[in-house]
Amino acid sequence: MRANYRLQRLFIAADLAEGVSVEADKDQFHYLAHVLRAEENTELLLFNGRDGEWRARLTYPTRKKIVLEAVEQTRPQTPPADLHYLFAPLKVGRMDYMVQKAVEMGAGIIQPVMTQHVQGKPGKSDRLAANIIEAAEQCGVLAIPELREPAKLADIIEAWPDGRRLIFCDEAEETQNPLDALKGVGEASLALIVGPEGGFSDEERSLLRSRDFVTAIPLGPRILRADTAAVAALAVIQAAIGDWR
Amino acid sequence: MRANYRLQRLFIAADLAEGVSVEADKDQFHYLAHVLRAEENTELLLFNGRDGEWRARLTYPTRKKIVLEAVEQTRPQTPPADLHYLFAPLKVGRMDYMVQKAVEMGAGIIQPVMTQHVQGKPGKSDRLAANIIEAAEQCGVLAIPELREPAKLADIIEAWPDGRRLIFCDEAEETQNPLDALKGVGEASLALIVGPEGGFSDEERSLLRSRDFVTAIPLGPRILRADTAAVAALAVIQAAIGDWR
Repeated sequence: MRANYRLQRLFIAADLAEGVSVEADKDQFHYLAHVLRAEENTELLLFNGRDGEWRARLTYPTRKKIVLEAVEQTRPQTPPADLHYLFAPLKVGRMDYMVQKAVEMGAGIIQPVMTQHVQGKPGKSDRLAANIIEAAEQCGVLAIPELREPAKLADIIEAWPDGRRLIFCDEAEETQNPLDALKGVGEASLALIVGPEGGFSDEERSLLRSRDFVTAIPLGPRILRADTAAVAALAVIQAAIGDWR
Repeated sequence: MRANYRLQRLFIAADLAEGVSVEADKDQFHYLAHVLRAEENTELLLFNGRDGEWRARLTYPTRKKIVLEAVEQTRPQTPPADLHYLFAPLKVGRMDYMVQKAVEMGAGIIQPVMTQHVQGKPGKSDRLAANIIEAAEQCGVLAIPELREPAKLADIIEAWPDGRRLIFCDEAEETQNPLDALKGVGEASLALIVGPEGGFSDEERSLLRSRDFVTAIPLGPRILRADTAAVAALAVIQAAIGDWR
């Protein structure tokens, strides 16, 4: 069922069921009352990652308080997205963008990775978490993707779980079409790793290519910025073997 | 042949041939001498959209002058990219981003389109042109995509040339997978149109869907921002029926 994008969506922590009322917290109050200037009886959508999506009605019991009453479930809860998205940090503004796009494109786990040619620091997790929640609210997903602590590439590879395929973008691939490379992927559980702007080091590329759980994909004949490569790779993966089918 | 991304690339207007020397203009001098701090005999790559790509050597005949001497052709000229990319203006910062990504993803014509729900003005063409040149230098293409003047959607549809298919992203498509929709496309000449953040109006969507040269594609189950949709759509198009094959 397609997400309804005409109503405002809000992530809340509280349980949701018919007739349940939730008081908006301080930040939510500010957003609803002062940014959106939502009027009495405005309808919006709520989700908490457990109870699906609910249409809710907004009221002001007092001028400084908002209560949201869940009226009707619009979509049942679905399992969280299974796609793991790993990426080397970029400069701060681009990092916000990277995590937003990852949420829009269906990532369930967001994992910053420290590589040799990394350009930026991992970034404050509070800020990344806020970007993730906002992107989740806007793009219609029913759960908030999990943000993991930054980890070193070698450690991640060493601890790689069985049964999950790791796809990485390799501009050194001989062919140019990712769809050919993806045809051979049998696993349902997927991960994508996007390297830093400078690319993976030769050592890192060797490490990745040496593992049988890794598939290298090319992304056409031109050089892509890391954030372009991320969205492009996610698109072809989701369309060919992921949740766009 | 893949683009060589280890050397700096520069677009110049002058003709290129073995032994030809070109003086850097004022902006190029500033960039090479002050931003890159390029030393005597630095190698870089030059292209002009006509004579392919050339390895060149940089010298300072005087402290305030740079001469670039074309040494050897690294890649022969190829025809300009044929993909037309049409998009509704966004806020200024995002517009820069949209045109950069379009160049990276292989657009040959970049056409701003005025729609009903447009969020921004078309933006100064000088600024967009500068973004296009810089993206072309960085991503390795051999010609600068053409930036056209903004035009109204209805006028563009009315004057649509025979033999070119127009693809548009329609979140109202029943299926979710663009690869299925693209299978039926027979034309080699393609165009993509990306609507504004608010989406096309119902009237605009009807206009597009009424034309037999138009193919609507879905982009998965989540709602995508216009700039995400643009890169995602270009990726699946190029991979399925475009120049990533």
